[in-house]
Amino acid sequence: SIVATELRCQCLKTLPRIDFEDIQSLKVTPPGPHCTQTEVIATLKDGQEVCLDPEGPRLQKIIQKILKKAKSS
Amino acid sequence: SIVATELRCQCLKTLPRIDFEDIQSLKVTPPGPHCTQTEVIATLKDGQEVCLDPEGPRLQKIIQKILKKAKSS
Repeated sequence: SIVATELRCQCLKTLPRIDFEDIQSLKVTPPGPHCTQTEVIATLKDGQEVCLDPEGPRLQKIIQKILKKAKSS
Repeated sequence: SIVATELRCQCLKTLPRIDFEDIQSLKVTPPGPHCTQTEVIATLKDGQEVCLDPEGPRLQKIIQKILKKAKSS
């Protein structure tokens, strides 16, 4: 499925928590004409896609951890 | 193209700066078997995909701005 061109909100419910190690990639979409809310979709290593709460305190930490990994490598 | 299952690094060079308003979505991929470096790929509103520097000081601000938008809406 071509996620980038979806014309509606994709997240109906969000997962309360997620293990950093399970994340293959994270996609963050700000509000736009297709959807009035910010959406955060994680693709897991098993191929599953799950939505995360953009306001969740853990999400910010996960993103920082990913970006920090870039620095240490 | 199915970006999620690419088996190699996708970013050869990164864009030095980007306008927040041009971003349709941001995809952050931590290092993994497919690529040893963190990759940040922005899909722009015109459909173009560009790579951003994961260590860039502006990137962290852009992500915070997107997540903050979630809070204010």
